[in-house]
Amino acid sequence: MDNTFTSKIFSVETLALDGRKESFVRGGRNLFPLLPKALAGIQQIGVIGWGSQGPAQAQNLRESLEGSGIRVVVGLRAGSSSMDNARKVGFTEADGTLGEMLDVIAKSDLTLVLIADAAVAELYPKIFQKLKPGSTLGLSHGFLLGHLGNVGDKFPANVNVIAVCPKGMGPSVRRLYEQGREVNGAGINTSFAVEQDIDGRATDIALAWSVGLGAPYTFKTTMRQEYLSDIYGERGILLGAVHGMVESLYRRYVAEGQSEEEAFVNACEAVTGPISNTISHDGILALYEKLSATEREEFDRAYSAAYAATRPVMEEIYEEVESGNELRSVVMAGKRLQKQPMPGIEGSRMWQVGKTVRANRGKRPAETHAFTAGVFIATMMAQVDVLIERGHPYSEIANESVIEAVDSLLPYMHARGVSYMIDNCSTTARLGARKWGPRFDANLSQLAYPDVDAKKPVDDKLVAAFRDHPIHGVLKKLSAMRPAVDIAVV
Amino acid sequence: MDNTFTSKIFSVETLALDGRKESFVRGGRNLFPLLPKALAGIQQIGVIGWGSQGPAQAQNLRESLEGSGIRVVVGLRAGSSSMDNARKVGFTEADGTLGEMLDVIAKSDLTLVLIADAAVAELYPKIFQKLKPGSTLGLSHGFLLGHLGNVGDKFPANVNVIAVCPKGMGPSVRRLYEQGREVNGAGINTSFAVEQDIDGRATDIALAWSVGLGAPYTFKTTMRQEYLSDIYGERGILLGAVHGMVESLYRRYVAEGQSEEEAFVNACEAVTGPISNTISHDGILALYEKLSATEREEFDRAYSAAYAATRPVMEEIYEEVESGNELRSVVMAGKRLQKQPMPGIEGSRMWQVGKTVRANRGKRPAETHAFTAGVFIATMMAQVDVLIERGHPYSEIANESVIEAVDSLLPYMHARGVSYMIDNCSTTARLGARKWGPRFDANLSQLAYPDVDAKKPVDDKLVAAFRDHPIHGVLKKLSAMRPAVDIAVV
Repeated sequence: MDNTFTSKIFSVETLALDGRKESFVRGGRNLFPLLPKALAGIQQIGVIGWGSQGPAQAQNLRESLEGSGIRVVVGLRAGSSSMDNARKVGFTEADGTLGEMLDVIAKSDLTLVLIADAAVAELYPKIFQKLKPGSTLGLSHGFLLGHLGNVGDKFPANVNVIAVCPKGMGPSVRRLYEQGREVNGAGINTSFAVEQDIDGRATDIALAWSVGLGAPYTFKTTMRQEYLSDIYGERGILLGAVHGMVESLYRRYVAEGQSEEEAFVNACEAVTGPISNTISHDGILALYEKLSATEREEFDRAYSAAYAATRPVMEEIYEEVESGNELRSVVMAGKRLQKQPMPGIEGSRMWQVGKTVRANRGKRPAETHAFTAGVFIATMMAQVDVLIERGHPYSEIANESVIEAVDSLLPYMHARGVSYMIDNCSTTARLGARKWGPRFDANLSQLAYPDVDAKKPVDDKLVAAFRDHPIHGVLKKLSAMRPAVDIAVV
Repeated sequence: MDNTFTSKIFSVETLALDGRKESFVRGGRNLFPLLPKALAGIQQIGVIGWGSQGPAQAQNLRESLEGSGIRVVVGLRAGSSSMDNARKVGFTEADGTLGEMLDVIAKSDLTLVLIADAAVAELYPKIFQKLKPGSTLGLSHGFLLGHLGNVGDKFPANVNVIAVCPKGMGPSVRRLYEQGREVNGAGINTSFAVEQDIDGRATDIALAWSVGLGAPYTFKTTMRQEYLSDIYGERGILLGAVHGMVESLYRRYVAEGQSEEEAFVNACEAVTGPISNTISHDGILALYEKLSATEREEFDRAYSAAYAATRPVMEEIYEEVESGNELRSVVMAGKRLQKQPMPGIEGSRMWQVGKTVRANRGKRPAETHAFTAGVFIATMMAQVDVLIERGHPYSEIANESVIEAVDSLLPYMHARGVSYMIDNCSTTARLGARKWGPRFDANLSQLAYPDVDAKKPVDDKLVAAFRDHPIHGVLKKLSAMRPAVDIAVV
């Protein structure tokens, strides 16, 4: 797979990540004046849907394109309860920036379809029918490509098909963009893909879309690689695995005799606080190198056992996504959700305790906890290794396994608990976290921790492979490109 | 669906189960003299595979057909490590009762394919090629039908295709048959299906096979209904759900301050002991009626919350099986298992405690525990209700949700723990229990128990529906047909 590309408008840089060349474009508000040129011929951008990504992308693009003459119009299903929310931030029928979904599509030159995956599966034939010939269809997720494969269908041949995929939930995309008003360079990075290019302009339209969202940088991928890694990653360390992990650690620490508050700090706050911060700013290896010799022993034991217990689940998830099973599950679940809403995920005792801990924060600041760090990083590395074996580009691997976790998602769990993180994501992600989280919990509780308690010897080869892992070099290079500020979740 | 049938050899009876007619044939050693007539033209029965069902069925049939002139020959892959196990119970190359799988198939008039589902998926084209024209292919599970649907293939047109599906794991099929030497009528009941009948003899061959296995009775189903309910049921209350449930109850009871032994007795021994025994002999309602008024309140609270939390998982499992996803997962997992064996499932602390409890059994006999009973029966009823909605015959619903659990499977968990129950079942079942058990654990721990603790009001309609449920009448009729003895697991 070739991860280099060229642009007529934006300056393209190239990095060697573990020896493989990957091109990228940096963002920044200074580039906004280039957007009209990159989007030449586009008078209207239709943003379809008001879920996780819709509100963020519609508002960011509207702001980035202010004064350009390009209109951003939100399209929703007639009678949608989200209409009011869109009106609240200034998209109105009165000024023609809010309308019925299919009407908006028919009048748009670039249509961003940001509705839930199950709705995409149901509505795509109608959407395809309404697309203007010669226009561009934009997705923030390759799900539809996978679904078309499952049902034996195709994109219409007379449109560009592109994807720009923010590496964070919608609220993060909005929040960091807002922070970017003060500090140029703040934003959630993206990957982009060109699935169909009928007029040679698809790449530049995608790049402009990414810059308009406020992304500090965008790397190239394919729509297929994107949806595989995205759906896999959110079931893994981004959402599902980290939820299962903190549940299992909390119970372990309480059973060991820690107070409930102490257990929450060590199981959850350690991850969302110091561990995330260190990884975000200095990389994974830096975290390891900060540990004392005794702590490293603890880390190594936890790492060995947790890697062995979580790697098989990671492989299973990847294959479930790759085979189309997981996409079919999402479509079926979407139908069930019409009868019965998704249940909560914050019912266990720890999240009550978490409220108290957060209310008293500062009295007992979380520290890096070696055992927790070992389990967290092992699970992360298991995810990374599966993606490397399957040939994903390193920029994507780092994003879907490390950067999105520490820069975009975990700050939400830190601010208000696991539901605030997971349930601000897409329905596909929320379903996947509920489905796979318990598997990680079970494998850690029933396999990894008993191994540790039985003093099973450390797998030295595994730990050495972690220390010498190419991901560290990759993160170092990408770290130089990280946003100028941390996300401030309120 | 018509669940009546006729036989030229066996006497057929008919029951009205919740008003729907279902025919069945009773078994018994007194019928063994009819087997040669029902199997006329069959000189050799090939039993392919030596997993859960193979050893039981090969030995039972050999014994039942002794003196009939019909040979039972075991066929295994060349170099299979199971060859030795088959030899140990008297199937040998020397007397022609043990051979290479494909050779055995080519010489058999009735071929029972009892290899693991993932192996069936891989090997079926070779097996089909070797089947004698005009012979009969027998399966103990409809998996292959589902798999053929997934890959767009069909059974060969020139053979009978039947299924006889014991409602218990292989070791139970063997154990109760052995007990049947002393007490006529002991055995694991079956369902049967005729998928293809090229010569009008398929039904009688299936009935003879069932009688030869020692089944006390067999009801008719279709191969599709069978595999849907079977794969669903083992992921549900038969294996996966009950495992997840006892893990969650044990942790709850320990957290409430019970001693580890006490918690194990209340979470697990209560289910495998008094609750199972009562249901097996007197039905589910009898269990409820034995409870005191205070216990019923406790039961109702647990029932309401657990039903609400587990029913959505049951629906999800059913749809995953129905869509073909679960079968694809099994095939993919089969390939991964060639590189890495399945991990254990008895790692959590409770199973260590269980050993002590079992060693000291008698000192503290388990009693019906109202909360545990409420959770267990709610999960069972959620499973039952999904099968009723999907139109399964009542005999099948009762078998796959109640009878198989209490008469065949739970006695194994009672004797030696959860792994002894689950890991004596098929690979498909073992995979499914590992996949879905944690979901039940999570939904009970994170949804149901918090509801109970928050004193969420009892759902009176739900409890009334349970008390008035047609399953009670069905179980009463089927109970009259249950084996003469309980299984004695050693």
